[in-house]
Amino acid sequence: MAPTSSADYLTQRSQLIAQDRSLRADNAIAKDLSEDERKADEILRRIRTREAQSVWSAENSTKHRHGSQQLFPGMEFLTARETIVETKLFDILSKMPKGGLLHAHLGAMVRADVLLELALSQPAMHVRVPEVISKATIDSVLPQFRGLPQSQWTTNESITDPAYVPNSWVPMKNARDNFSAVLGGPEGFDRWITSAMTINPAEAYGTHNSTIEIWKKFSSTFGVSEGLIFFEPVLREYIRAYFLSSIDDGISYLETRMLFHAKTILDAKGEETMDHKGFLELYDSVVEDVKAKMKEEGREDEFVGSKVKLSTHFKSFIQCSLRATQIIYTVLRILTPEDLEWYLEDCIEMKKKFPHLIAGFDFVGHEDTLRPLIDYAEPLLRFVARQKELGISIPFMFHAGETLGDGTMADMNLYDAILLGTKRIGHGFSLIKHPKLLEICREREICVEVCPISNEILRLTGSMPMHPLPAIMNQGVRVALCSDDPAIFGNMGLSFDFYQVFVASEVNGLATLRTLVWDSIKYSSLEGQQEEEAFAKLERRWPVFIRYILDTYGKFEA
Amino acid sequence: MAPTSSADYLTQRSQLIAQDRSLRADNAIAKDLSEDERKADEILRRIRTREAQSVWSAENSTKHRHGSQQLFPGMEFLTARETIVETKLFDILSKMPKGGLLHAHLGAMVRADVLLELALSQPAMHVRVPEVISKATIDSVLPQFRGLPQSQWTTNESITDPAYVPNSWVPMKNARDNFSAVLGGPEGFDRWITSAMTINPAEAYGTHNSTIEIWKKFSSTFGVSEGLIFFEPVLREYIRAYFLSSIDDGISYLETRMLFHAKTILDAKGEETMDHKGFLELYDSVVEDVKAKMKEEGREDEFVGSKVKLSTHFKSFIQCSLRATQIIYTVLRILTPEDLEWYLEDCIEMKKKFPHLIAGFDFVGHEDTLRPLIDYAEPLLRFVARQKELGISIPFMFHAGETLGDGTMADMNLYDAILLGTKRIGHGFSLIKHPKLLEICREREICVEVCPISNEILRLTGSMPMHPLPAIMNQGVRVALCSDDPAIFGNMGLSFDFYQVFVASEVNGLATLRTLVWDSIKYSSLEGQQEEEAFAKLERRWPVFIRYILDTYGKFEA
Repeated sequence: MAPTSSADYLTQRSQLIAQDRSLRADNAIAKDLSEDERKADEILRRIRTREAQSVWSAENSTKHRHGSQQLFPGMEFLTARETIVETKLFDILSKMPKGGLLHAHLGAMVRADVLLELALSQPAMHVRVPEVISKATIDSVLPQFRGLPQSQWTTNESITDPAYVPNSWVPMKNARDNFSAVLGGPEGFDRWITSAMTINPAEAYGTHNSTIEIWKKFSSTFGVSEGLIFFEPVLREYIRAYFLSSIDDGISYLETRMLFHAKTILDAKGEETMDHKGFLELYDSVVEDVKAKMKEEGREDEFVGSKVKLSTHFKSFIQCSLRATQIIYTVLRILTPEDLEWYLEDCIEMKKKFPHLIAGFDFVGHEDTLRPLIDYAEPLLRFVARQKELGISIPFMFHAGETLGDGTMADMNLYDAILLGTKRIGHGFSLIKHPKLLEICREREICVEVCPISNEILRLTGSMPMHPLPAIMNQGVRVALCSDDPAIFGNMGLSFDFYQVFVASEVNGLATLRTLVWDSIKYSSLEGQQEEEAFAKLERRWPVFIRYILDTYGKFEA
Repeated sequence: MAPTSSADYLTQRSQLIAQDRSLRADNAIAKDLSEDERKADEILRRIRTREAQSVWSAENSTKHRHGSQQLFPGMEFLTARETIVETKLFDILSKMPKGGLLHAHLGAMVRADVLLELALSQPAMHVRVPEVISKATIDSVLPQFRGLPQSQWTTNESITDPAYVPNSWVPMKNARDNFSAVLGGPEGFDRWITSAMTINPAEAYGTHNSTIEIWKKFSSTFGVSEGLIFFEPVLREYIRAYFLSSIDDGISYLETRMLFHAKTILDAKGEETMDHKGFLELYDSVVEDVKAKMKEEGREDEFVGSKVKLSTHFKSFIQCSLRATQIIYTVLRILTPEDLEWYLEDCIEMKKKFPHLIAGFDFVGHEDTLRPLIDYAEPLLRFVARQKELGISIPFMFHAGETLGDGTMADMNLYDAILLGTKRIGHGFSLIKHPKLLEICREREICVEVCPISNEILRLTGSMPMHPLPAIMNQGVRVALCSDDPAIFGNMGLSFDFYQVFVASEVNGLATLRTLVWDSIKYSSLEGQQEEEAFAKLERRWPVFIRYILDTYGKFEA
């Protein structure tokens, strides 16, 4: 019906907008906001609008410009980061209880500087390079690290000395202490390693500005960091640091993808004796350690699984909680279907031994260039059948559609992920191209683990405003925001991802944030009492967060 | 139903893919391809796959790299252009009959070098600048052109001479002939003007790499070119050049947006006497001129509206045809609603005088920063009512959603465009965010004028693979590919836009191309016999195009 009057027009307009947004997951909560939440929502929106002008406007570009980047809300993260942390909106979001982190790769969860410190404290940790490091080679040669058995420790002094024998091991501490002054000395060593384990703006937005090129750099970082991380004494502290820093950012539950490709990890003696069972025992024991630490701090009631009745006393929302943490068993999508069989069996064995830890199964690696899911359909169908026989459940949590391709192998992975019954979808960047799959995801509540900053740095999107997230949300698909590989991208925690998403849309409000947080628990692997406890905890922490917004910004931003 | 066997799995997979693509406009044609078309489709797909490796692969990036751009199919147009024109796929697409061009702004339809030549031939054409042009000012100062009345002609010699009096008029020919040798002499003048009328890669992908910044440059180009174009003797030749170059690219119908903001145009004497009626008479007379020229060349049967019975003899598909051309009356979205009234009345007057020419009404200008459609809802509703009274039809062809915004003024223009009954949508870049609007567009067959290269250069998308077009097409929304402002972007004709779209998707095939071409007539303003003639013409030209593919590439690419 064509409108016949202005009043009629405005009525029809409101109805059309409401219809258009009727599938959104945040509708129910938006209608149900408390009075305080409404006020907090208004404050958030007002700050967003003001900071779009005061911080992110084009007029500030010349002042803040890095290279040729322009300032705008949701701009490229790597050049925006230092500005983001100065904003009021970031302060607020960093205080928000985040719920669960559902898409995170263990190999990239701790800041490079922290990892370096952890590794340097281990005399067993050695480094080698295929060429002497000099001005000519420092930008192209990558270091390899390894915790050696004591019998193989060396007294070599330097990897920058022209006398260095290529590929010979040098104690990491020596290599650092004696790093050539011309290359910056010990700090130069740190910069070099950090640069090899992270993506910098010049790479993402310049030399490697395409999905293919940036994946080369991205993949290479794991080759450097894995030698530092996967040595038992470092690994233990690394996992602890990952847990504690996540708690600090308001994350109360972690569902971690662990790459089980290697069949063993180096034990404390530098021997390859720690099998997958050994790793899971270690992981479990760190969970217990962190529980103990939290108990010392009077926060023991904040763990899922602890039988202690939840305390009604809640000191401060800044006292974040680690509820529980689970592992998604992942393998590389370079395996042959035949080789996959061993891992599927191993995954089942681990699930039997650690039923509380193993939460799912997934493949990792560049979808555009490695094997598509359909290659593995047969063994995966048998894997599902076998679980039924055994009465266990290891749901698929497949990466799928992390691509710009249309009708390519990587894009088509979405069909297979859904046909194979995936519980969630990792990334699902190209899902917006698929009307039927959007409908299925909406109806079956297949939650999409969206990793905004990862997608942008890996060049699937030029910036947040170009990201398909708003389109996915308007289709009523459930979403959990995730950080993916924050140690490489610099988006530690979840505050940065929430920030980028929140500033790039005028539709998103407090109800959206609340929905994303709650859904990160709802679509996690938590069930029954654990899930109830997680929700109860959020219900108690949320009003404290709202109170922070009102108390801190209510007056000044009125 | 979960699949129970591999065969079952593959069946379910095919069904799911078919369901997912069931809304696509090219389905019907895909089922109906002739044997030759099937072969041509295979050839096209094979060439696309091969050239993705031989031309667009990352391995070629170092050889072809411009700045820090990487090579990939659908990469940034301005750095890809010189590579595109060397490909086999481009050769094929440049031979394709394109149907209609439905979104094209008259002010940016002729190559800068051609426009310069046209203007230079006019002794009345003068130029002035606010500062002497020197090495220090050439990159920032913009020239202003004007065809002066003879009484005001000057004998000034140069705009680079330090003695130049700022803002004084210099004959364009003098300014060019005497352009300082330090600045490149006459060729330096041409480079300077061309640069002021076009967007170069350093701007789009560097200094102006955001929607706000690039729109500043984009808008400024019109200020330079309008002085050259809108002077009767130039304008006449300009329109002719636009028609002929479009015909050369296989475009057989033009629906041109003309900005009627200025109430007069300079006549041949340099006086502001040519009103909107005068302009339409001029436009009409060029149509007649071109008809006459075509008649001379034995191609008079290729015009819509000519009463001559269509010849069944068809010499060569390279002999393209101009069927007809119509005007969409546009105004700037800076008008107050009150000021709009005059233009709406004027538009009605022009429609009465030139019923065959006036095809629609639209607003132009940056949606992110200028007035939203809702500001004009009242006068526009009255405009619709008035048309009914008068028994005329001037459908809206609104620009809407040419933005990265989510829930912003520009994004919300889509609601208003649809509520006001728009016949087509210009750009509709943000349409993919709106499930209900996608449904309405699909059901009411509101065709979206998608301008791929324009969107990319104006930084709505980083490259073609990031563009929402595949998502829009899978939603069953009808699309016409358009070039928007090719003189500024360098995408003359439609071959480049078809190229970028075709290489960025594995789903698109010959059926997609054919659908896009046919839909550009179906959703044009052609009706009745004119429309039938246009389709008949396409039906005759298409097999010649298919034959070209088979004959030229059938053997070598088998």
